[in-house]
Order: sequence, then structure tokens, then C-alpha cells
Amino acid sequence: MSITVVGSIAYDTVKTPFGQRERMLGGAAVHFAMAASFFDDVRVVGPVGDDFGDAQLDVLRTRGVDVSDIERIEGGKTFFWQGEYGWDLNSRDTLDTQLGVFEGFQPKLSDGSRSSDVLFLANIQPDLQRDVRGQLPHASFVALDSMNLWIDIARDSLVDAIESVDCLILNDAELRQLTGKPNLVAAAREILSWNPPADGAGERRGPSVIVAKQGEYGAALVTRDGFFALPAYPLESVIDPTGAGDTFAGGLIGYIAAHPHEELSDGLLRRAMAHATVLASFNVEEFGTERIERLTGREIVARISELHAMTQFSGAPLQLRG
Amino acid sequence: MSITVVGSIAYDTVKTPFGQRERMLGGAAVHFAMAASFFDDVRVVGPVGDDFGDAQLDVLRTRGVDVSDIERIEGGKTFFWQGEYGWDLNSRDTLDTQLGVFEGFQPKLSDGSRSSDVLFLANIQPDLQRDVRGQLPHASFVALDSMNLWIDIARDSLVDAIESVDCLILNDAELRQLTGKPNLVAAAREILSWNPPADGAGERRGPSVIVAKQGEYGAALVTRDGFFALPAYPLESVIDPTGAGDTFAGGLIGYIAAHPHEELSDGLLRRAMAHATVLASFNVEEFGTERIERLTGREIVARISELHAMTQFSGAPLQLRG
Repeated sequence: MSITVVGSIAYDTVKTPFGQRERMLGGAAVHFAMAASFFDDVRVVGPVGDDFGDAQLDVLRTRGVDVSDIERIEGGKTFFWQGEYGWDLNSRDTLDTQLGVFEGFQPKLSDGSRSSDVLFLANIQPDLQRDVRGQLPHASFVALDSMNLWIDIARDSLVDAIESVDCLILNDAELRQLTGKPNLVAAAREILSWNPPADGAGERRGPSVIVAKQGEYGAALVTRDGFFALPAYPLESVIDPTGAGDTFAGGLIGYIAAHPHEELSDGLLRRAMAHATVLASFNVEEFGTERIERLTGREIVARISELHAMTQFSGAPLQLRG
Repeated sequence: MSITVVGSIAYDTVKTPFGQRERMLGGAAVHFAMAASFFDDVRVVGPVGDDFGDAQLDVLRTRGVDVSDIERIEGGKTFFWQGEYGWDLNSRDTLDTQLGVFEGFQPKLSDGSRSSDVLFLANIQPDLQRDVRGQLPHASFVALDSMNLWIDIARDSLVDAIESVDCLILNDAELRQLTGKPNLVAAAREILSWNPPADGAGERRGPSVIVAKQGEYGAALVTRDGFFALPAYPLESVIDPTGAGDTFAGGLIGYIAAHPHEELSDGLLRRAMAHATVLASFNVEEFGTERIERLTGREIVARISELHAMTQFSGAPLQLRG
């Protein structure tokens, strides 16, 4: 099995209260791929400029990621983002965005990337997401991330894209914005109800899995069968939140892809959420991909076990009054 | 055993996107007492004006709450609060606050209230909290709530009050503000480290239990031994968040008070957090005390069981790559 991810490959210049880095390797597809690579083969599709070096590709290659569909545009510049985080890391200002080769990006998938069974559409223009989704008609599991920008300027296109995937991953504020429902559960249920079969029969289109990213508070999972929520793994020191959401998605989708013979049950999804949470927690401990580059499977397993212990309680029988 | 709570008894006029109510029964001590009454005997200490009726007292009496230390000030007016909530209920504007009899309030505790083993100091001026705490020197468990106002204008007094209790319950933003630490875990650990014994021996003063209320995201528990977090119980429809925090505290402290012979372990505290979460979830389903007034023990137990099911995941063995 393998996972194809389409999205940005970037240089990030980031300042947080704890330090700064110039032109680090970043981008949604990179953070996703690094995390998912602990679980399955990963192929990255996206453009870079001729300022993108072999050292950067080697970071991905070292984790076994297939970089053959990373397209180098001669004379072009790699996508660049510069941002600065506030005191509590909950707010950030974008200081500079240079689309570079990302402007006019037309995803070109090789036969290899088209043969993947699992697809992650990282946050890019929704028409491109639909186009790529159409190139993998037989993928068994397709997930999509997006952002408030596309809800603002391309909502119809985004809704079409969402209706073509199995799993929607958004920040909780974006779920509210997308649906106009102020309540997370109501917003998720609204999306789960989109596009019932016209004749009451046949297969329902649209996602069956909604994941709400809640930043430092963790994440929630809403399916037609149930609800699940996990706190973020508690850290005394968070250094750089950049890429946490895509790392989370990489852990989630990676875990699902690694279980191709298991039914997509709430039990499987919950274990995937736990792995997503743990991967994201490592990501924010250092700048960019620094921590994930030297992360080991053993560390992931140990933290899963800690997260499990931190979220358990037993219901003791109790005689209540009234 | 019994629990004494000192705090506001109020009339609340509340408008939310889902309706409004004029001069409902409210106040921190009322919401706390209603919730805690499912677990143990509760005594309320606080002032009301002569506009406070028997019908209001009956709401508390019906739940078995001892109202004999509710002091009626002749010619005075009951504390009044008017507020309006925004679209997503996460922000609210205070439109009017009339302290009434709360101005100049000097808590007078009867022998009965002083004999309680458990004390909850709801959000009032911290010097008053210290005064009341001094009147129950032998209480086995004392918890305190506060707010940003007191951090702003009476921080030293608040710190003294906090150092005199076992358990601090605050909104997570207030924990950050109080400690100047942007990170929840770091903030809680800071408070847990306050006032080590000067000679390295003897008993440490100050709280051993920190509870961070996180609104719609749930709540976290930090002790010297560990960390625990629970999501809020997911509701598709939240009508009025007023009093949710005090209802949460009532569930938490009530559960602890109902287990006087059990060591204050993390296991006990986690079960208390679950009951707190469930009580708060019922509170916000309707305006003011409306839902809690007709809540039953059976409904609480059923929802504890649902919350348990929503927060469980199993760690399946998995061969990770790298």
C-alpha cells in the first residue's frame, strides 16, 4: 500500500517567543509525509523552485519518502512563508507569503502516485483538489484539509471537493464557518448529512469522517456512529506550532493506511487519532521538521501509552441523591 | 459529611442566540449547590435582598440544600447580572452588574457551616475567601475559584488565598494570566511549586490539585503526580453557558466530598472530573438552573457512561517504521 499527498513544499521563516529559523524546510505536504512515513510508503506531489536543494530532498528520502513526483520548476522559486507567533502561540501573524512556483501549479501525478490506495489532499485551491481526486478514482480512502481562505473565496468549489472525499480535516473554527453552525457537533452532523442519495437508495456521497482540529486543546472525531475527543498531549514547552496540523493529518492518515484489511470502524479511527495526536506533539517540540527527523517508532509507542494513561477514568458505582 | 459554599446568589438576565430570560435564579453559590447536592449535604452562605423570594429558596430546598445561612438584608437588593452571549457562545458581554447586598458582604457562618469538612470558596473578593477559609481551619478539603478581575486588582491577596487551599479551579486563560506562563502545564506546575517548606521539611502549603476549565473544550487536571484531561460532553445544542463553571465545580467537589474515606488519589480526582463534566453539560442545555432542577441521578450515571465510551481508545500493537 502507499499514500499519495498533494500539497505545498515550502521554505518557512518562523519566529516564536523561543527562537527563530530562516528558510527551514516546511509546507503541508512535507509535514504530512514526514509523519505518515512512520506507517506506510508515502509519495509527495508538489512543485519546488531551483532554489530547492538536495539536502531538503534528503530529509524526506531519509524517512523513505518517494520524492520522484516533486517537480522542480527551472527558474522558479519555492513557496515561501514567513510568520511570527504571539506570547501563547495561539495567534500568529503572516509577515510574508510568496507563492513562487505554487502559482499556476497543475498537479502532475505519475502512474506510481495514481496507484496509491490512500490520498491526502493538503490545503490547496479546491479545484486542484478535485482534479487530483479525479486522478485516483479507485482510492479506498481520501482525506482533505482546507482553510478559511477557500471558504471565503471559493466555497462552492470547496463543498464540491469535500463531497468527493471520505474524510474532512479542518480546524474547529473553520467547520463552524463552513456550515454556519456555531456548535461543533451540529456543524459536523451537517456535513455528514450533505448529499443524501436522491432516490433514497444508492451510496451516499460525501465524507463519513469529520475531524476537528482544536489546537492546544486536541482534536475531536465525529462519524455517523459516534463522537470521540482527545486532548493534546500535554507539553511544558512548545517551541513552534508550524506544521502541527499537517503532522496530525500524517499520523491519522498514515495509521489508517497501515491497516488496509481492517474495516474503517470507530475503533480504528480512534487509534488513528491517538497516533495523530502523538505525532503532532513531537512536531511542536522543536522548529520545523527538526524533532520529527530524529523521531523513532519506539518514542511514538511510548507516548501513545502515556496519552492512553492520561485519558482514562473508571466509573465507580455511586449512589446519587435525586 | 457536608459541603459549605460561600459565594454569590443572584438574579441573572441572560440573552443568548436561542432565547432570553429575565431575573432567573443564578449566582455561583446557587449553581455550585444545585450540582453538589447530588452527592452530599450542601450549605449555602451568601446574602440576598428582600427582593429574593421563597420560590427561589425552594429551588435550593427541593434539592435538599441547607439555606439557613443565606442572609436576607432588609432593604437590600439581590446581586444582579445581565449579559448577552455571541453567536458561538464563546464570548459574552456584561451589560449590567448591580452588586446590591454583595457590596460590603461579610460572610457570617453558623456553627453548622463551620463544621463542614469540605469548603468551596466561589469567586468573591480574595480577602473574604481567606477570612472564610480561616473560619474552617479543620476542613479536610478546600477549593477556590476566582476570576481575572482579582488577578488584575488584588493579585497578592489572591495568591495568599490560593496558598491556603487544596484545590484551585480557574479558566485556563486565568491560569496563564496568574502565573505569566503561556503554557497550561507550565502554569499549573508553577502554582504547585509555590511555597515549599523553608527548611526543606514540614508540610508544603498551597494547592496540590489544579483544575483548568477550558469551556467548550473540557477541562484538565494537573497534580504533582500527573495530568488528566477530559473533553466537554458533546452537545448539539447549547442554550445558556451561564453557571457552567460553578456547576462543574459542584460536581467535582461534590464527588470528592462523597468519598471521605478514600485517599485523594488521581483516580478519585479523575472520576470527580467526569462527574463535573457531566453536571456542567446538563447545566448548559437550558437556561439558568432549569435543567438541573429536574435532573435525576439516573441521567447523570447514564451520561457518565456515555462520556466514558467517548474517551476510550485501545492501543493496538503496530510495527512502526523507524
